[in-house]
Amino acid sequence: MTLLFDRVAIIGVGLIGGSLGLALRQKRLARRVVGVGRRRASIDRALEIGAIDEGTLDATKGVKDAELVVLGTAIRLIMEMGEKVATALSPGAIVTDVGSTKSEVVRRLEKVLPAGVHFVGAHPIAGSEKRGVDAARPELFEKCICVLTPTEKTDPEALRRVADLWSAVGARVATLSCEEHDRILARTSHLPHLVASALVASLQGPDTGFVGTGLRDTTRVASGDVDVWCDVFLTNREAVLEALAGFTDRMSELRRAVETGDRDKLALLLAAAKRRRDDL
Amino acid sequence: MTLLFDRVAIIGVGLIGGSLGLALRQKRLARRVVGVGRRRASIDRALEIGAIDEGTLDATKGVKDAELVVLGTAIRLIMEMGEKVATALSPGAIVTDVGSTKSEVVRRLEKVLPAGVHFVGAHPIAGSEKRGVDAARPELFEKCICVLTPTEKTDPEALRRVADLWSAVGARVATLSCEEHDRILARTSHLPHLVASALVASLQGPDTGFVGTGLRDTTRVASGDVDVWCDVFLTNREAVLEALAGFTDRMSELRRAVETGDRDKLALLLAAAKRRRDDL
Repeated sequence: MTLLFDRVAIIGVGLIGGSLGLALRQKRLARRVVGVGRRRASIDRALEIGAIDEGTLDATKGVKDAELVVLGTAIRLIMEMGEKVATALSPGAIVTDVGSTKSEVVRRLEKVLPAGVHFVGAHPIAGSEKRGVDAARPELFEKCICVLTPTEKTDPEALRRVADLWSAVGARVATLSCEEHDRILARTSHLPHLVASALVASLQGPDTGFVGTGLRDTTRVASGDVDVWCDVFLTNREAVLEALAGFTDRMSELRRAVETGDRDKLALLLAAAKRRRDDL
Repeated sequence: MTLLFDRVAIIGVGLIGGSLGLALRQKRLARRVVGVGRRRASIDRALEIGAIDEGTLDATKGVKDAELVVLGTAIRLIMEMGEKVATALSPGAIVTDVGSTKSEVVRRLEKVLPAGVHFVGAHPIAGSEKRGVDAARPELFEKCICVLTPTEKTDPEALRRVADLWSAVGARVATLSCEEHDRILARTSHLPHLVASALVASLQGPDTGFVGTGLRDTTRVASGDVDVWCDVFLTNREAVLEALAGFTDRMSELRRAVETGDRDKLALLLAAAKRRRDDL
Protein backbone atom coordinates (compact mmCIF):
# COMPACT_ATOMS: atom_id res chain seq x y z
CA MET A 1 0.00 0.00 0.00
CA THR A 2 1.03 3.61 -0.48
CA LEU A 3 1.90 5.77 2.46
CA LEU A 4 -1.08 8.10 2.82
CA PHE A 5 -0.12 10.20 5.82
CA ASP A 6 2.99 11.13 7.66
CA ARG A 7 2.15 11.46 11.34
CA VAL A 8 -1.35 10.37 12.42
CA ALA A 9 -2.72 11.10 15.89
CA ILE A 10 -5.61 8.96 17.07
CA ILE A 11 -7.39 10.42 20.06
CA GLY A 12 -9.10 7.56 21.83
CA VAL A 13 -7.57 4.14 21.25
CA GLY A 14 -10.61 1.98 21.97
CA LEU A 15 -12.38 -0.41 19.63
CA ILE A 16 -12.56 2.02 16.69
CA GLY A 17 -9.38 4.03 17.26
CA GLY A 18 -7.40 0.91 18.12
CA SER A 19 -8.65 -0.96 15.06
CA LEU A 20 -7.79 2.00 12.84
CA GLY A 21 -4.31 2.15 14.36
CA LEU A 22 -3.80 -1.57 13.74
CA ALA A 23 -4.96 -1.25 10.13
CA LEU A 24 -2.83 1.86 9.48
CA ARG A 25 0.26 0.19 10.88
CA GLN A 26 -0.19 -3.23 9.34
CA LYS A 27 -0.90 -1.74 5.92
CA ARG A 28 1.86 0.88 6.36
CA LEU A 29 -0.50 3.71 5.50
CA ALA A 30 1.06 6.14 7.99
CA ARG A 31 4.65 6.83 8.82
CA ARG A 32 3.89 7.01 12.51
CA VAL A 33 0.76 6.51 14.60
CA VAL A 34 0.45 8.36 17.89
CA GLY A 35 -2.24 7.28 20.32
CA VAL A 36 -3.83 9.60 22.84
CA GLY A 37 -5.67 7.99 25.74
CA ARG A 38 -7.15 8.92 29.06
CA ARG A 39 -5.70 5.99 30.92
CA ARG A 40 -2.12 4.78 30.93
CA ALA A 41 -3.37 1.18 30.82
CA SER A 42 -5.15 1.56 27.46
CA ILE A 43 -2.12 3.28 25.96
CA ASP A 44 0.13 0.49 27.19
CA ARG A 45 -2.25 -2.12 25.83
CA ALA A 46 -2.48 -0.30 22.47
CA LEU A 47 1.33 -0.27 22.27
CA GLU A 48 1.43 -3.94 23.21
CA ILE A 49 -0.95 -5.07 20.47
CA GLY A 50 0.76 -2.82 17.93
CA ALA A 51 -2.11 -0.38 17.40
CA ILE A 52 0.17 2.66 17.86
CA ASP A 53 3.86 3.53 17.59
CA GLU A 54 3.82 5.84 20.58
CA GLY A 55 1.29 6.98 23.12
CA THR A 56 0.54 9.88 25.40
CA LEU A 57 -2.10 11.01 27.88
CA ASP A 58 -1.63 14.58 26.71
CA ALA A 59 -3.84 15.31 23.70
CA THR A 60 -2.17 18.64 22.98
CA LYS A 61 1.20 16.97 22.80
CA GLY A 62 -0.22 14.07 20.81
CA VAL A 63 -1.54 16.17 17.94
CA LYS A 64 1.69 18.16 17.60
CA ASP A 65 2.98 17.94 14.01
CA ALA A 66 0.26 15.45 13.08
CA GLU A 67 -0.79 15.56 9.45
CA LEU A 68 -4.02 13.77 10.33
CA VAL A 69 -5.88 13.83 13.63
CA VAL A 70 -8.61 11.24 14.16
CA LEU A 71 -11.06 12.02 16.94
CA GLY A 72 -11.85 8.42 17.83
CA THR A 73 -13.76 8.73 21.11
CA ALA A 74 -17.44 8.78 22.02
CA ILE A 75 -19.37 11.76 20.68
CA ARG A 76 -19.27 14.14 23.64
CA LEU A 77 -15.55 13.64 24.02
CA ILE A 78 -15.04 14.11 20.26
CA MET A 79 -16.40 17.63 20.63
CA GLU A 80 -14.49 18.32 23.84
CA MET A 81 -11.20 17.01 22.46
CA GLY A 82 -11.68 18.97 19.24
CA GLU A 83 -11.94 22.16 21.25
CA LYS A 84 -9.06 21.18 23.49
CA VAL A 85 -6.53 20.49 20.76
CA ALA A 86 -7.73 23.25 18.38
CA THR A 87 -4.86 25.63 19.03
CA ALA A 88 -2.21 22.90 19.06
CA LEU A 89 -2.97 21.68 15.53
CA SER A 90 -0.50 22.29 12.72
CA PRO A 91 -1.61 24.58 9.89
CA GLY A 92 -2.90 22.40 7.04
CA ALA A 93 -3.64 19.46 9.34
CA ILE A 94 -6.67 17.34 8.53
CA VAL A 95 -9.02 16.52 11.39
CA THR A 96 -11.63 13.82 11.12
CA ASP A 97 -13.84 11.98 13.57
CA VAL A 98 -15.73 8.71 13.93
CA GLY A 99 -18.87 9.96 15.66
CA SER A 100 -22.07 8.03 15.01
CA THR A 101 -24.16 11.21 14.86
CA LYS A 102 -22.98 14.04 12.67
CA SER A 103 -25.03 17.29 12.62
CA GLU A 104 -24.13 18.53 16.07
CA VAL A 105 -20.58 17.16 16.01
CA VAL A 106 -19.73 18.68 12.62
CA ARG A 107 -21.37 22.01 13.45
CA ARG A 108 -19.40 22.33 16.69
CA LEU A 109 -16.08 21.19 15.29
CA GLU A 110 -16.31 23.45 12.26
CA LYS A 111 -16.87 26.30 14.70
CA VAL A 112 -13.96 25.62 17.04
CA LEU A 113 -11.26 24.46 14.64
CA PRO A 114 -9.00 27.28 13.43
CA ALA A 115 -8.82 28.44 9.83
CA GLY A 116 -6.19 26.51 7.91
CA VAL A 117 -7.16 23.22 9.59
CA HIS A 118 -9.40 21.02 7.46
CA PHE A 119 -12.20 19.14 9.14
CA VAL A 120 -13.98 16.18 7.50
CA GLY A 121 -16.84 14.49 9.37
CA ALA A 122 -16.84 10.70 9.12
CA HIS A 123 -18.69 7.74 10.55
CA PRO A 124 -17.41 4.22 9.94
CA ILE A 125 -20.46 1.99 10.49
CA ALA A 126 -18.54 -0.70 12.30
CA GLY A 127 -18.11 -1.88 15.82
CA SER A 128 -20.00 -4.01 18.20
CA GLU A 129 -21.44 -3.95 21.68
CA LYS A 130 -17.89 -4.54 22.89
CA ARG A 131 -15.51 -1.70 23.46
CA GLY A 132 -11.95 -1.01 24.42
CA VAL A 133 -8.68 -1.62 22.66
CA ASP A 134 -8.78 -5.33 23.54
CA ALA A 135 -11.67 -5.74 21.11
CA ALA A 136 -9.74 -3.94 18.35
CA ARG A 137 -8.82 -5.80 15.17
CA PRO A 138 -7.26 -4.51 11.97
CA GLU A 139 -10.00 -5.97 9.73
CA LEU A 140 -12.84 -4.28 11.63
CA PHE A 141 -13.51 -1.90 8.74
CA GLU A 142 -13.29 -4.46 5.91
CA LYS A 143 -16.46 -4.05 3.83
CA CYS A 144 -18.09 -1.74 6.37
CA ILE A 145 -19.62 1.48 5.12
CA CYS A 146 -17.85 4.68 6.08
CA VAL A 147 -20.06 7.72 5.63
CA LEU A 148 -18.35 11.05 5.04
CA THR A 149 -20.44 14.14 5.70
CA PRO A 150 -18.91 17.13 3.94
CA THR A 151 -20.45 20.58 4.27
CA GLU A 152 -19.99 23.67 2.12
CA LYS A 153 -16.97 24.44 4.28
CA THR A 154 -15.20 21.13 3.61
CA ASP A 155 -11.94 21.26 1.70
CA PRO A 156 -12.27 18.93 -1.34
CA GLU A 157 -8.66 17.76 -1.10
CA ALA A 158 -9.03 16.91 2.59
CA LEU A 159 -12.27 15.06 1.79
CA ARG A 160 -10.49 13.04 -0.88
CA ARG A 161 -7.65 12.14 1.46
CA VAL A 162 -9.98 11.02 4.25
CA ALA A 163 -11.92 8.97 1.69
CA ASP A 164 -8.66 7.36 0.56
CA LEU A 165 -7.82 6.54 4.16
CA TRP A 166 -11.09 4.68 4.78
CA SER A 167 -10.92 2.91 1.42
CA ALA A 168 -7.38 1.81 2.22
CA VAL A 169 -8.50 0.13 5.45
CA GLY A 170 -11.20 -1.75 3.58
CA ALA A 171 -14.31 0.41 3.98
CA ARG A 172 -16.74 1.35 1.24
CA VAL A 173 -16.99 5.12 1.34
CA ALA A 174 -20.33 6.92 0.93
CA THR A 175 -21.13 10.61 1.13
CA LEU A 176 -24.22 12.08 2.77
CA SER A 177 -25.18 15.41 4.26
CA CYS A 178 -25.04 15.46 8.06
CA GLU A 179 -28.83 15.65 8.20
CA GLU A 180 -29.36 12.73 5.80
CA HIS A 181 -26.84 10.69 7.74
CA ASP A 182 -28.55 11.38 11.05
CA ARG A 183 -32.04 10.59 9.76
CA ILE A 184 -30.92 7.32 8.15
CA LEU A 185 -28.87 6.18 11.13
CA ALA A 186 -31.74 7.05 13.45
CA ARG A 187 -33.72 4.32 11.66
CA THR A 188 -30.96 1.79 11.02
CA SER A 189 -29.08 2.06 14.31
CA HIS A 190 -30.43 4.39 17.00
CA LEU A 191 -34.05 3.22 16.94
CA PRO A 192 -33.04 -0.48 17.00
CA HIS A 193 -30.99 0.23 20.09
CA LEU A 194 -33.90 1.92 21.89
CA VAL A 195 -36.19 -0.93 20.90
CA ALA A 196 -33.72 -3.58 22.06
CA SER A 197 -33.41 -1.81 25.41
CA ALA A 198 -37.19 -1.62 25.80
CA LEU A 199 -37.52 -5.31 24.90
CA VAL A 200 -35.05 -6.38 27.56
CA ALA A 201 -36.70 -4.03 30.05
CA SER A 202 -40.06 -5.72 29.29
CA LEU A 203 -38.83 -9.09 30.55
CA GLN A 204 -40.24 -10.28 33.84
CA GLY A 205 -38.79 -12.44 36.61
CA PRO A 206 -39.14 -15.96 35.25
CA ASP A 207 -38.54 -15.05 31.60
CA THR A 208 -34.76 -15.29 31.55
CA GLY A 209 -34.93 -19.06 31.89
CA PHE A 210 -36.87 -19.33 28.63
CA VAL A 211 -34.81 -17.38 26.18
CA GLY A 212 -33.95 -18.62 22.69
CA THR A 213 -31.52 -17.33 20.12
CA GLY A 214 -34.23 -14.98 18.76
CA LEU A 215 -34.37 -12.75 21.83
CA ARG A 216 -30.61 -12.94 22.27
CA ASP A 217 -30.03 -11.59 18.76
CA THR A 218 -32.84 -9.08 18.92
CA THR A 219 -31.46 -7.52 22.08
CA ARG A 220 -27.68 -7.90 21.65
CA VAL A 221 -27.14 -4.20 21.00
CA ALA A 222 -28.72 -3.34 24.37
CA SER A 223 -25.39 -4.42 25.90
CA GLY A 224 -23.75 -1.38 24.33
CA ASP A 225 -22.00 1.22 26.45
CA VAL A 226 -24.51 3.46 28.23
CA ASP A 227 -22.52 6.69 27.97
CA VAL A 228 -21.79 6.19 24.28
CA TRP A 229 -25.48 5.67 23.57
CA CYS A 230 -26.66 8.57 25.70
CA ASP A 231 -24.42 10.73 23.52
CA VAL A 232 -25.95 9.25 20.38
CA PHE A 233 -29.56 9.78 21.44
CA LEU A 234 -29.05 13.23 22.86
CA THR A 235 -27.13 14.56 19.84
CA ASN A 236 -29.73 13.16 17.43
CA ARG A 237 -32.97 13.74 19.31
CA GLU A 238 -35.13 15.04 16.51
CA ALA A 239 -34.30 12.29 14.03
CA VAL A 240 -34.59 9.60 16.71
CA LEU A 241 -38.04 10.84 17.74
CA GLU A 242 -39.11 10.92 14.10
CA ALA A 243 -37.87 7.36 13.56
CA LEU A 244 -39.65 6.31 16.72
CA ALA A 245 -42.91 7.80 15.49
CA GLY A 246 -42.64 5.76 12.28
CA PHE A 247 -41.91 2.62 14.26
CA THR A 248 -44.86 3.25 16.56
CA ASP A 249 -47.15 3.47 13.52
CA ARG A 250 -45.86 0.14 12.22
CA MET A 251 -46.32 -1.44 15.67
CA SER A 252 -49.89 -0.13 15.83
CA GLU A 253 -50.74 -1.75 12.50
CA LEU A 254 -49.36 -5.06 13.70
CA ARG A 255 -51.14 -4.71 17.04
CA ARG A 256 -54.48 -4.01 15.38
CA ALA A 257 -54.12 -7.07 13.15
CA VAL A 258 -53.40 -9.27 16.20
CA GLU A 259 -56.13 -7.65 18.27
CA THR A 260 -58.82 -8.11 15.63
CA GLY A 261 -57.53 -11.56 14.66
CA ASP A 262 -57.19 -10.35 11.07
CA ARG A 263 -54.98 -13.11 9.68
CA ASP A 264 -54.88 -11.73 6.12
CA LYS A 265 -53.72 -8.33 7.28
CA LEU A 266 -51.22 -9.80 9.71
CA ALA A 267 -49.82 -12.08 7.01
CA LEU A 268 -49.47 -9.10 4.64
CA LEU A 269 -47.58 -7.04 7.21
CA LEU A 270 -45.29 -9.90 8.25
CA ALA A 271 -44.64 -10.87 4.63
CA ALA A 272 -43.69 -7.31 3.69
CA ALA A 273 -41.30 -7.17 6.65
CA LYS A 274 -39.87 -10.59 5.81
CA ARG A 275 -39.19 -9.53 2.20
CA ARG A 276 -37.34 -6.43 3.36
CA ARG A 277 -35.35 -8.41 5.91
CA ASP A 278 -34.45 -11.11 3.41
CA ASP A 279 -33.15 -8.35 1.12
CA LEU A 280 -30.85 -6.81 3.73
CA MET B 1 -28.40 -44.73 25.08
CA THR B 2 -31.39 -46.79 26.13
CA LEU B 3 -34.20 -47.46 23.72
CA LEU B 4 -37.02 -45.22 24.93
CA PHE B 5 -39.76 -45.96 22.42
CA ASP B 6 -40.64 -48.66 20.01
CA ARG B 7 -42.29 -47.06 16.96
CA VAL B 8 -42.27 -43.24 16.79
CA ALA B 9 -44.31 -41.31 14.24
CA ILE B 10 -43.24 -37.75 13.52
CA ILE B 11 -45.88 -35.75 11.72
CA GLY B 12 -44.12 -32.94 9.91
CA VAL B 13 -40.48 -33.59 9.07
CA GLY B 14 -39.25 -30.01 8.82
CA LEU B 15 -36.60 -28.30 10.90
CA ILE B 16 -37.93 -29.49 14.27
CA GLY B 17 -39.41 -32.85 13.26
CA GLY B 18 -36.43 -33.66 11.07
CA SER B 19 -33.93 -32.73 13.78
CA LEU B 20 -35.82 -34.86 16.30
CA GLY B 21 -35.81 -37.78 13.85
CA LEU B 22 -32.07 -37.42 13.31
CA ALA B 23 -31.41 -37.32 17.05
CA LEU B 24 -33.71 -40.29 17.79
CA ARG B 25 -32.05 -42.39 15.12
CA GLN B 26 -28.46 -41.41 15.79
CA LYS B 27 -28.85 -41.99 19.51
CA ARG B 28 -30.93 -45.15 18.93
CA LEU B 29 -33.71 -43.92 21.17
CA ALA B 30 -36.48 -45.41 19.04
CA ARG B 31 -36.73 -48.77 17.34
CA ARG B 32 -38.22 -47.20 14.24
CA VAL B 33 -39.00 -43.62 13.16
CA VAL B 34 -41.84 -43.03 10.71
CA GLY B 35 -42.10 -39.65 9.06
CA VAL B 36 -45.38 -38.17 7.84
CA GLY B 37 -45.14 -35.32 5.37
CA ARG B 38 -47.35 -33.37 3.02
CA ARG B 39 -44.96 -33.47 0.11
CA ARG B 40 -43.16 -36.48 -1.31
CA ALA B 41 -40.03 -34.37 -1.74
CA SER B 42 -39.63 -33.64 1.98
CA ILE B 43 -40.20 -37.30 2.85
CA ASP B 44 -37.56 -38.34 0.31
CA ARG B 45 -35.17 -35.76 1.64
CA ALA B 46 -35.82 -36.86 5.25
CA LEU B 47 -35.06 -40.47 4.24
CA GLU B 48 -31.95 -39.35 2.41
CA ILE B 49 -30.44 -37.49 5.36
CA GLY B 50 -31.41 -40.29 7.73
CA ALA B 51 -34.03 -38.43 9.74
CA ILE B 52 -36.59 -41.25 9.38
CA ASP B 53 -36.64 -44.99 8.69
CA GLU B 54 -39.73 -44.84 6.56
CA GLY B 55 -42.09 -42.16 5.30
CA THR B 56 -45.66 -41.70 4.19
CA LEU B 57 -47.98 -38.94 3.06
CA ASP B 58 -50.84 -40.62 4.89
CA ALA B 59 -50.95 -39.49 8.51
CA THR B 60 -53.52 -42.12 9.51
CA LYS B 61 -51.28 -44.85 8.18
CA GLY B 62 -48.21 -43.24 9.70
CA VAL B 63 -49.48 -43.27 13.28
CA LYS B 64 -50.61 -46.91 13.11
CA ASP B 65 -49.02 -48.92 15.93
CA ALA B 66 -46.92 -45.94 16.98
CA GLU B 67 -46.06 -45.88 20.66
CA LEU B 68 -45.26 -42.18 20.40
CA VAL B 69 -46.71 -39.64 17.98
CA VAL B 70 -44.97 -36.29 17.69
CA LEU B 71 -47.05 -33.52 16.11
CA GLY B 72 -44.13 -31.60 14.63
CA THR B 73 -45.82 -29.10 12.31
CA ALA B 74 -46.82 -25.46 12.64
CA ILE B 75 -49.49 -24.77 15.24
CA ARG B 76 -52.63 -24.79 13.10
CA LEU B 77 -51.63 -28.04 11.47
CA ILE B 78 -50.78 -29.57 14.87
CA MET B 79 -54.40 -29.11 15.84
CA GLU B 80 -55.72 -30.33 12.48
CA MET B 81 -53.47 -33.37 12.38
CA GLY B 82 -54.35 -34.23 15.98
CA GLU B 83 -58.02 -34.36 15.02
CA LYS B 84 -57.28 -36.22 11.84
CA VAL B 85 -55.30 -39.08 13.38
CA ALA B 86 -57.32 -39.30 16.62
CA THR B 87 -59.23 -42.44 15.71
CA ALA B 88 -56.21 -44.17 14.17
CA LEU B 89 -54.09 -43.99 17.34
CA SER B 90 -53.29 -47.15 19.28
CA PRO B 91 -54.69 -47.40 22.80
CA GLY B 92 -52.03 -46.32 25.26
CA ALA B 93 -50.16 -44.29 22.64
CA ILE B 94 -48.48 -41.11 23.80
CA VAL B 95 -49.08 -38.00 21.70
CA THR B 96 -46.95 -34.90 22.07
CA ASP B 97 -46.43 -31.73 20.05
CA VAL B 98 -43.84 -29.01 19.49
CA GLY B 99 -46.13 -25.99 19.21
CA SER B 100 -44.73 -22.65 20.29
CA THR B 101 -48.01 -21.59 21.89
CA LYS B 102 -49.73 -23.98 24.25
CA SER B 103 -53.10 -22.97 25.76
CA GLU B 104 -55.20 -23.29 22.63
CA VAL B 105 -53.26 -26.26 21.24
CA VAL B 106 -53.41 -28.26 24.46
CA ARG B 107 -57.09 -27.43 25.06
CA ARG B 108 -58.06 -28.57 21.58
CA LEU B 109 -55.93 -31.71 21.53
CA GLU B 110 -57.12 -32.83 24.95
CA LYS B 111 -60.65 -32.48 23.62
CA VAL B 112 -60.23 -34.43 20.39
CA LEU B 113 -57.88 -37.22 21.44
CA PRO B 114 -59.69 -40.39 22.56
CA ALA B 115 -59.61 -41.75 26.10
CA GLY B 116 -56.70 -44.16 26.55
CA VAL B 117 -54.37 -41.99 24.47
CA HIS B 118 -52.05 -39.79 26.56
CA PHE B 119 -51.34 -36.26 25.42
CA VAL B 120 -48.41 -34.22 26.72
CA GLY B 121 -47.96 -30.65 25.48
CA ALA B 122 -44.36 -29.71 24.73
CA HIS B 123 -42.40 -26.81 23.26
CA PRO B 124 -38.72 -27.22 22.52
CA ILE B 125 -37.39 -23.65 22.40
CA ALA B 126 -35.12 -24.28 19.46
CA GLY B 127 -35.07 -23.51 15.80
CA SER B 128 -34.18 -20.57 13.69
CA GLU B 129 -35.60 -18.36 10.98
CA LYS B 130 -34.80 -21.21 8.60
CA ARG B 131 -37.19 -24.06 8.04
CA GLY B 132 -37.52 -27.34 6.22
CA VAL B 133 -35.78 -30.66 6.67
CA ASP B 134 -32.64 -29.37 4.95
CA ALA B 135 -31.99 -27.15 7.97
CA ALA B 136 -32.42 -30.11 10.35
CA ARG B 137 -29.51 -31.25 12.49
CA PRO B 138 -29.37 -33.82 15.27
CA GLU B 139 -27.81 -31.45 17.79
CA LEU B 140 -30.53 -28.78 17.39
CA PHE B 141 -31.92 -29.50 20.85
CA GLU B 142 -28.59 -29.71 22.71
CA LYS B 143 -28.90 -27.37 25.71
CA CYS B 144 -32.15 -25.87 24.49
CA ILE B 145 -35.03 -25.60 26.93
CA CYS B 146 -37.98 -27.88 26.30
CA VAL B 147 -41.07 -26.75 28.18
CA LEU B 148 -43.66 -29.38 29.04
CA THR B 149 -47.12 -28.09 29.87
CA PRO B 150 -49.04 -30.76 31.76
CA THR B 151 -52.64 -30.17 32.84
CA GLU B 152 -54.75 -31.95 35.43
CA LYS B 153 -55.60 -34.44 32.68
CA THR B 154 -51.99 -35.36 31.92
CA ASP B 155 -50.90 -38.92 32.69
CA PRO B 156 -47.80 -38.71 34.97
CA GLU B 157 -46.14 -41.71 33.34
CA ALA B 158 -46.61 -40.23 29.86
CA LEU B 159 -45.24 -36.91 31.15
CA ARG B 160 -42.17 -38.68 32.50
CA ARG B 161 -41.56 -40.52 29.25
CA VAL B 162 -41.84 -37.36 27.15
CA ALA B 163 -39.47 -35.61 29.56
CA ASP B 164 -37.01 -38.50 29.16
CA LEU B 165 -37.25 -38.18 25.40
CA TRP B 166 -36.32 -34.50 25.38
CA SER B 167 -33.58 -35.00 27.96
CA ALA B 168 -32.15 -37.79 25.85
CA VAL B 169 -31.84 -35.52 22.79
CA GLY B 170 -29.98 -32.95 24.89
CA ALA B 171 -32.69 -30.53 26.05
CA ARG B 172 -33.14 -29.18 29.54
CA VAL B 173 -36.71 -29.96 30.48
CA ALA B 174 -38.86 -27.43 32.35
CA THR B 175 -42.50 -27.62 33.36
CA LEU B 176 -44.97 -24.73 33.20
CA SER B 177 -48.71 -24.38 32.98
CA CYS B 178 -49.95 -23.58 29.48
CA GLU B 179 -50.87 -20.07 30.58
CA GLU B 180 -47.49 -19.37 32.20
CA HIS B 181 -45.75 -20.71 29.11
CA ASP B 182 -47.76 -18.49 26.81
CA ARG B 183 -47.26 -15.35 28.88
CA ILE B 184 -43.50 -15.91 29.18
CA LEU B 185 -43.02 -16.78 25.52
CA ALA B 186 -45.10 -13.77 24.51
CA ARG B 187 -42.37 -11.62 26.09
CA THR B 188 -39.29 -13.67 25.16
CA SER B 189 -40.25 -14.67 21.62
CA HIS B 190 -43.52 -13.38 20.17
CA LEU B 191 -43.08 -9.71 21.08
CA PRO B 192 -39.47 -9.63 19.79
CA HIS B 193 -40.75 -10.97 16.48
CA LEU B 194 -43.42 -8.27 16.18
CA VAL B 195 -40.89 -5.63 17.11
CA ALA B 196 -38.33 -6.91 14.60
CA SER B 197 -40.98 -6.83 11.87
CA ALA B 198 -41.99 -3.28 12.75
CA LEU B 199 -38.32 -2.20 12.78
CA VAL B 200 -37.72 -3.53 9.29
CA ALA B 201 -40.99 -2.02 8.12
CA SER B 202 -39.82 1.37 9.44
CA LEU B 203 -36.85 1.47 7.08
CA GLN B 204 -37.04 3.91 4.22
CA GLY B 205 -35.63 3.85 0.71
CA PRO B 206 -31.97 4.80 1.16
CA ASP B 207 -31.58 3.07 4.54
CA THR B 208 -30.63 -0.39 3.33
CA GLY B 209 -27.26 0.89 2.13
CA PHE B 210 -26.35 1.94 5.68
CA VAL B 211 -27.01 -1.11 7.75
CA GLY B 212 -24.60 -2.45 10.35
CA THR B 213 -24.54 -5.72 12.26
CA GLY B 214 -26.77 -4.18 14.93
CA LEU B 215 -29.85 -3.88 12.72
CA ARG B 216 -29.12 -7.22 11.10
CA ASP B 217 -29.15 -9.01 14.44
CA THR B 218 -32.06 -7.03 15.82
CA THR B 219 -34.27 -7.95 12.86
CA ARG B 220 -33.07 -11.46 11.98
CA VAL B 221 -36.20 -13.15 13.31
CA ALA B 222 -38.39 -11.08 10.96
CA SER B 223 -37.25 -13.50 8.23
CA GLY B 224 -39.25 -16.24 9.90
CA ASP B 225 -42.04 -18.04 8.06
CA VAL B 226 -45.14 -15.87 7.81
CA ASP B 227 -47.70 -18.66 8.25
CA VAL B 228 -45.92 -20.12 11.25
CA TRP B 229 -45.88 -16.72 12.92
CA CYS B 230 -49.48 -15.88 12.09
CA ASP B 231 -50.40 -19.08 13.93
CA VAL B 232 -48.29 -18.03 16.90
CA PHE B 233 -49.77 -14.56 17.20
CA LEU B 234 -53.36 -15.62 16.62
CA THR B 235 -53.26 -18.49 19.11
CA ASN B 236 -51.68 -16.29 21.79
CA ARG B 237 -53.41 -12.96 21.23
CA GLU B 238 -54.14 -12.00 24.80
CA ALA B 239 -50.63 -12.65 26.11
CA VAL B 240 -49.03 -10.99 23.07
CA LEU B 241 -51.14 -7.86 23.53
CA GLU B 242 -50.28 -7.79 27.22
CA ALA B 243 -46.56 -8.12 26.44
CA LEU B 244 -46.93 -5.39 23.83
CA ALA B 245 -48.52 -3.07 26.37
CA GLY B 246 -45.56 -3.58 28.71
CA PHE B 247 -43.13 -2.91 25.88
CA THR B 248 -44.99 0.24 24.87
CA ASP B 249 -44.66 1.57 28.43
CA ARG B 250 -40.91 0.94 28.40
CA MET B 251 -40.62 2.65 24.98
CA SER B 252 -42.55 5.66 26.28
CA GLU B 253 -40.16 6.05 29.21
CA LEU B 254 -37.20 5.96 26.84
CA ARG B 255 -38.90 8.36 24.44
CA ARG B 256 -39.65 10.86 27.20
CA ALA B 257 -36.03 10.78 28.37
CA VAL B 258 -34.81 11.48 24.82
CA GLU B 259 -37.49 14.10 24.19
CA THR B 260 -36.72 16.07 27.35
CA GLY B 261 -32.96 15.54 26.97
CA ASP B 262 -32.88 13.99 30.45
CA ARG B 263 -29.48 12.32 30.34
CA ASP B 264 -29.61 10.98 33.90
CA LYS B 265 -32.94 9.28 33.33
CA LEU B 266 -31.87 7.96 29.93
CA ALA B 267 -28.64 6.58 31.41
CA LEU B 268 -30.60 4.88 34.19
CA LEU B 269 -32.97 3.20 31.73
CA LEU B 270 -30.22 2.11 29.34
CA ALA B 271 -28.05 0.86 32.21
CA ALA B 272 -30.90 -1.22 33.64
CA ALA B 273 -31.51 -2.74 30.20
CA LYS B 274 -27.80 -3.35 29.68
CA ARG B 275 -27.52 -5.16 33.01
CA ARG B 276 -30.43 -7.43 32.15
CA ARG B 277 -29.03 -8.12 28.70
CA ASP B 278 -25.55 -8.83 30.02
CA ASP B 279 -27.15 -11.36 32.40
CA LEU B 280 -28.96 -13.28 29.66
